[in-house]
Amino acid sequence: MLDEKYYKTRRTIRRYKPQTPDAQLIDKMLELASHAPTTGNMQLYSVIVTTEKELLDKLAILHFKQPASLAPMLVTFCADFNRTTRWAELSDANPGFGNFQSFIAAMLDATILAQEFVNIAEHEGLGCCYLGTTTYNAPDIASVLGLPSLVVPVVTIAVGYPDEEWHTSDRLPLESFRYKETYTPLTDDQLLACYRHREELPENQQFVADNNKTTLAQVFTDIRYPRNNNEQFSTIFKDFLIKNGFSL
Amino acid sequence: MLDEKYYKTRRTIRRYKPQTPDAQLIDKMLELASHAPTTGNMQLYSVIVTTEKELLDKLAILHFKQPASLAPMLVTFCADFNRTTRWAELSDANPGFGNFQSFIAAMLDATILAQEFVNIAEHEGLGCCYLGTTTYNAPDIASVLGLPSLVVPVVTIAVGYPDEEWHTSDRLPLESFRYKETYTPLTDDQLLACYRHREELPENQQFVADNNKTTLAQVFTDIRYPRNNNEQFSTIFKDFLIKNGFSL
Repeated sequence: MLDEKYYKTRRTIRRYKPQTPDAQLIDKMLELASHAPTTGNMQLYSVIVTTEKELLDKLAILHFKQPASLAPMLVTFCADFNRTTRWAELSDANPGFGNFQSFIAAMLDATILAQEFVNIAEHEGLGCCYLGTTTYNAPDIASVLGLPSLVVPVVTIAVGYPDEEWHTSDRLPLESFRYKETYTPLTDDQLLACYRHREELPENQQFVADNNKTTLAQVFTDIRYPRNNNEQFSTIFKDFLIKNGFSL
Repeated sequence: MLDEKYYKTRRTIRRYKPQTPDAQLIDKMLELASHAPTTGNMQLYSVIVTTEKELLDKLAILHFKQPASLAPMLVTFCADFNRTTRWAELSDANPGFGNFQSFIAAMLDATILAQEFVNIAEHEGLGCCYLGTTTYNAPDIASVLGLPSLVVPVVTIAVGYPDEEWHTSDRLPLESFRYKETYTPLTDDQLLACYRHREELPENQQFVADNNKTTLAQVFTDIRYPRNNNEQFSTIFKDFLIKNGFSL
């Protein structure tokens, strides 16, 4: 039966108690999650569960020490065509997966698995946070985790028992992203109306003021996701994909 | 509470009854799904729900008329930086999202939303199938759906009420994809052992014989995902990304 309340009240957790989640519980959750859909049932992913202090410290730096990166467990989900390629080579087959479309398929598989894992973890009382910084510092993360060719980290899930107060995040209204039949662009007024509630939230007005900006959008374009950063990390990630075997 | 049975027995459905799922139900499910995690709470996605016969016929062709593409409803999940960019431009901000890293972030958001939607749909008694062909024919799909710049279709979910018998898919054992602390490659013997159960399944042995191959891996490398196809569709998708505003 659908657990509507779970979906409506779920939230990202960024601060955790020191307790490391049980390894067997994580294994059980990953096994359950692996029943999620996957490209041609190839399961084009690998998952690295890291709990050793020294490794966690190195990874936290590569995730810019954002609060969630200090979790007692970091689970790195990788697009992985290495295993499938080796299987093919060991089976008299001639694999051709070192290309962009194969990377995209493996990235889909890894992301679907990650979200299924988050779903299961949250039902088990754990708190999770996606670290979007995984693709920013992919080369160094790959180095710390010892990733071979055709394995690319795409998302990291910080996992732990919640140690912060509960508050759900706002979301844009359905009309901002759901289109019927084809994509009929919103008018400027409709589009701005979708963001109004968000812009009027006291915490967001404070966020704008704290950053010395005049609009909420400016916080996203100038502070959080500025063009120069996006372009710099694009180059790093593209170079890493090519170096690691996925030609672009 | 965790519904273990759901995860263990979930399966992809590829044949559907003719009944179109109710639009209000789909809206409710998408609204619930939108509570899933998203990059910086930007919700970098759009979702096109298609049920009109003429559009479905066009899309089915672009998905190579695979059985699931004949569903009564196709839901196309797109990486979308168009809305966020317009919001920024209308808010005295200077957006810089026409790059690879921004596309990757939006693709993550769209995929996470899609998997949350599949989860919810399956709990509502609907059957779903991911159409991985979405990125193969992205330019033509974008044309049918009228997608503007900075909007890229990444996955399509076929949705309908199940009209086929139940059989769960096998999955590789946990040891094939879960690594502790860092990535310690499997030995050749360990790797082959992971695939043995799958290779010995009668339906897979039949699949090998039907395709006049000698190993299961050859079906994947020669028939289902041959190098030439992968490379051809890589070029198409890369060109489309660039044309549509995400420089590579």
